[in-house]
Amino acid sequence: MRRRLRSPVYDPRLAMDKLSFLQAHVVRLSGYVPGEQPRDRLYVKLNTNESPYAPSPVVLEALRGAVTDALRLYPDPTATALRAKASAVYGVPADHILVGNGSDELLSLVMRACIGPGDRVAYAAPTYSLYATLVALQNGVAIEVPFDDTYALPTARLSVLGQRVTFVCNPNAPSGTLVPLPAIEELARTAPGLLVVDEAYVDYASAGATALPLVGRHPNVVVLRTFSKSFSLCGMRVGLAFGVPPVLTELAKVKDSYNVSHLGQVAAAAALDDCAWMAANVARVVATRAELTAALHARGFDVAPSDANFVLARRPGKAGEMADLQRALRDRGVLVRYFDVPRLRDALRITVGTPDETAILIRAIDAARGAG
Amino acid sequence: MRRRLRSPVYDPRLAMDKLSFLQAHVVRLSGYVPGEQPRDRLYVKLNTNESPYAPSPVVLEALRGAVTDALRLYPDPTATALRAKASAVYGVPADHILVGNGSDELLSLVMRACIGPGDRVAYAAPTYSLYATLVALQNGVAIEVPFDDTYALPTARLSVLGQRVTFVCNPNAPSGTLVPLPAIEELARTAPGLLVVDEAYVDYASAGATALPLVGRHPNVVVLRTFSKSFSLCGMRVGLAFGVPPVLTELAKVKDSYNVSHLGQVAAAAALDDCAWMAANVARVVATRAELTAALHARGFDVAPSDANFVLARRPGKAGEMADLQRALRDRGVLVRYFDVPRLRDALRITVGTPDETAILIRAIDAARGAG
Repeated sequence: MRRRLRSPVYDPRLAMDKLSFLQAHVVRLSGYVPGEQPRDRLYVKLNTNESPYAPSPVVLEALRGAVTDALRLYPDPTATALRAKASAVYGVPADHILVGNGSDELLSLVMRACIGPGDRVAYAAPTYSLYATLVALQNGVAIEVPFDDTYALPTARLSVLGQRVTFVCNPNAPSGTLVPLPAIEELARTAPGLLVVDEAYVDYASAGATALPLVGRHPNVVVLRTFSKSFSLCGMRVGLAFGVPPVLTELAKVKDSYNVSHLGQVAAAAALDDCAWMAANVARVVATRAELTAALHARGFDVAPSDANFVLARRPGKAGEMADLQRALRDRGVLVRYFDVPRLRDALRITVGTPDETAILIRAIDAARGAG
Repeated sequence: MRRRLRSPVYDPRLAMDKLSFLQAHVVRLSGYVPGEQPRDRLYVKLNTNESPYAPSPVVLEALRGAVTDALRLYPDPTATALRAKASAVYGVPADHILVGNGSDELLSLVMRACIGPGDRVAYAAPTYSLYATLVALQNGVAIEVPFDDTYALPTARLSVLGQRVTFVCNPNAPSGTLVPLPAIEELARTAPGLLVVDEAYVDYASAGATALPLVGRHPNVVVLRTFSKSFSLCGMRVGLAFGVPPVLTELAKVKDSYNVSHLGQVAAAAALDDCAWMAANVARVVATRAELTAALHARGFDVAPSDANFVLARRPGKAGEMADLQRALRDRGVLVRYFDVPRLRDALRITVGTPDETAILIRAIDAARGAG
């Protein structure tokens, strides 16, 4: 079956102007850079907000059972079984649910359905940096309204920008902070266009945080969830969008027909059969988050109150120190996230790991600073 | 964990003009309709070109071994291990390979990287109907050049259309016909912009059919493969794009970081470890394809010579008859594909199944026509 190229003679000096079929705004773009996923050695991995706890045994059992000859068949293009489960768990009709290849795909579908060249997208910043990339890919215009130090939603300013789409990441990444539901609903009323509430981390937040009750009440609201974080299934790529059918119908037109693998659908449906497992892991993370926050406070870090599975640890004005600390921690086997962008250079975003991982992190911070 | 909507009060009378954040060209679009994936009863399923044979046991074993706690981690965003395997098997450097969530995603990435409003995309028709949908989603302009009855590539006409992208599905769907490599290379030389050679079915074709030798020699060529057909892995969603690094770099900017699930990467890599399994299944399909073609000829159908895992069976001028036949076969438990579009209404596209499935199909055709 081996087919050898007779001549892979690609010349790297090839000028990009020979490749003028590529859109200029794409070529200009630097591209989204995800946190590193090293394969070379074992790290205490606190850099990409994965759960430190395993998926439910119910999920692993369901997956093993689904590894059969039937993988030769296409997956269900509309993920009927998974949507039925999600409908029961979240109390939203199944036709108000669209399943994505992770919530990243759902964010991309929203942009492709709504944003053309020059169209505006608004959000408070700093936030999930993928939003800016997705707007740029559509040749749209991102309007970033700065958060103040309390990370309250700048509702008034976000309501007068003439945008077609507004993103609210709630709890917000990388700050971990939560905006209360009434503020979200106020924005749904006042902001023009579609309001996307990205709830990747909402299971780690206080009760009553979710904007799901707004779906249907405000047809311009879409709420996104993911199985990557609280359900410990980053590797399977499944997310959910909740919205009214006329909006989801348009998102569905944009998606690939078979966007979610059969095993992804099986894993997510099984995860919803064991929400207690998820809740127990969330409770452990929330407890460790309090310990981590206290330990960082004791070491002179500012830590915004977090409703997520990570904290933003800040040393105001000490930009260089934080870049150095991130590297020093890496040398000691601990990965945390440093964002080399304005307003975040004096901060590290640290995922809440197990208690043991957190202890290793704190010891590594102490050692790195002692050695510094 | 149950969260009930207090008021899912979506009013279906909601006017779409309240949803003006959606792009008009998306709302206008009818959307791509995949072949049905019924879950309600068992059919002889010859409608979506899946392999009738199981994936390799090597694949299933690798998948079972990969169902572990590590699914809590993100997949490798660049599918390093899979690309290394594909590099060895296909003789193309690993940095000339991009992995997609099925080749459908790779087609979409090409469109998003290259096509903006009003940009032209050209292809000979009839062909894979998703191309037209993807062009429309970008608000581009699809220029379809009709195939003649021999399905020879209309190279001269395809070279003067001012397009940014040209699609060639080879072997072509739904005709099953193959264009020889020199014709593809001629088109790579003469057509403006990027030439995408979609080789979803090429493993079923005669030796020497693939355009992989053109990659590198012509930097404007991208070749697409999929694990869905010959490797029997529709359910896992993995495809490969082969092209020069400056082009793949731009496609990678458009893709979601974690576009291919961990298990998808594992399955595809394992499949490449057992290409002999794939080749044996291909040989069986090719043998059955000859028998199916002969049986259809004997029953008065025109069948274009197929290099794919399906045939296009035509009764020239008998449009109504074919729609009826498709329904009659469905009633008898056999699914085949009918396309209700110009030039295809007198034809059925029939996937090559097992010898037993093929016998059932032929008996069902005879019974349906006898009863008609």
